[in-house]
Amino acid sequence: MGKVYLVGAGPGTVDLLTLRAARLLARADVVFHDALVDDEVLALAPQARKVAVGKRCGRLSTAQQFINRQLVDAAQRHACVVRLKGGDPMLFGRAQEEIAALSGAGIEVEVVPGISAAFGASAALGQSLTRRGVSRSVAFLTPAVGQGEQPHAWADAARGADTVVLYMASRQAQAIADGLVAAGLPASRPAVLVENASRPDQRVLPTTVAGLPAAAGELGDGPALILVGEVYAELVQDACRVALQDRGLRAAAA
Amino acid sequence: MGKVYLVGAGPGTVDLLTLRAARLLARADVVFHDALVDDEVLALAPQARKVAVGKRCGRLSTAQQFINRQLVDAAQRHACVVRLKGGDPMLFGRAQEEIAALSGAGIEVEVVPGISAAFGASAALGQSLTRRGVSRSVAFLTPAVGQGEQPHAWADAARGADTVVLYMASRQAQAIADGLVAAGLPASRPAVLVENASRPDQRVLPTTVAGLPAAAGELGDGPALILVGEVYAELVQDACRVALQDRGLRAAAA
Repeated sequence: MGKVYLVGAGPGTVDLLTLRAARLLARADVVFHDALVDDEVLALAPQARKVAVGKRCGRLSTAQQFINRQLVDAAQRHACVVRLKGGDPMLFGRAQEEIAALSGAGIEVEVVPGISAAFGASAALGQSLTRRGVSRSVAFLTPAVGQGEQPHAWADAARGADTVVLYMASRQAQAIADGLVAAGLPASRPAVLVENASRPDQRVLPTTVAGLPAAAGELGDGPALILVGEVYAELVQDACRVALQDRGLRAAAA
Repeated sequence: MGKVYLVGAGPGTVDLLTLRAARLLARADVVFHDALVDDEVLALAPQARKVAVGKRCGRLSTAQQFINRQLVDAAQRHACVVRLKGGDPMLFGRAQEEIAALSGAGIEVEVVPGISAAFGASAALGQSLTRRGVSRSVAFLTPAVGQGEQPHAWADAARGADTVVLYMASRQAQAIADGLVAAGLPASRPAVLVENASRPDQRVLPTTVAGLPAAAGELGDGPALILVGEVYAELVQDACRVALQDRGLRAAAA
């Protein structure tokens, strides 16, 4: 019987993997990976068979039960099986379902943490999630609405937190803005959209809660985070200043 | 002029640093590090001068302004200065004050993310912070009370979140339990204390919100996290079952 490692692949850039993740990939026999995991990351596992198993916001994805069965099968035939997940496995990663399936089949599981997108984005922005006198709490949430639930139930977690990070949310930006305002956040609160956090093609769109739908319209099809909080006030002010200068230059030229 | 890298050292175990962090340490001229950073981690920077600059819960720490000045001075004399912070620099790390001081002095700063303790603890526990049908939001907060604030103001962020992680909180466990109950959390909600998350000397103490003060009394003097949420229900049940079995064995032996 082999062992399965649920490994965080981090926000996308290969050198943001942990040393432990890289060492495990180097000796993996099989790697099951999310569609979002980069080729450069997979190149760390030269001798492994690579199997793409979903999941990508709005794209075709492999059913969770089928992934679970593939992991169990692989562990029965190989010593070192790596299940590579974007970001950290324990935040919005469906890790518990895979751990339960493997443990239930008597297979040993070890989880290796990874850099979640919010931390990759914060580093790239140079903006701390918390800041003395401004923010000392952060909520990480995803707005997917379950059957029979109130439409804005997800927004409860945003109410009391100083900084809010929304995962898998950018394609429903109007519902997000509505939900945040319904939860009591001011429509003017600074917000930032970050697409492809930490990658060379990263894009940063500073706005406000009310401006989220318009800003989201500018996004490409990479994974994007929504960050909301007074910690982004300067970033938004700077963006406004640049926009005003541009307009001033155009006015002067006209 | 040199460049300063604010680098996350992760939860403590050396191989949970990122590849980028290890590469920067290898070429660092000076490393300014928190007291909590391990010797094994510092050994990744063989040629660097190492300067300990605080901070350790309840211990002597270097004033932030003095750290800022030391960083500016070092960048004026060395090409590669690393400021190594436990966990991730952008979560409860006072990074913004250092970034502002360095930028103000015209010094380039780059932030390298790290694995925050909550992710190290979740991996070691094998318990996801989020779980389908149980938790889809997580609040990270620290309970330090500012001057003139309501005693339980910090607990607002815990109210709407499914899972709550409290940093730098274990030495005030009674106030935490009181604050969480005042915020509307049931006293019976499962909770876990994790000391020295991800290290060989890690300790896990499953309990409930009401049981936090008693459990915290069992802690040593390592850094500890408090995790609260229904995702820890099984962990608490298992601990109770073991305790009952122990009592049964003792009763049978008597």
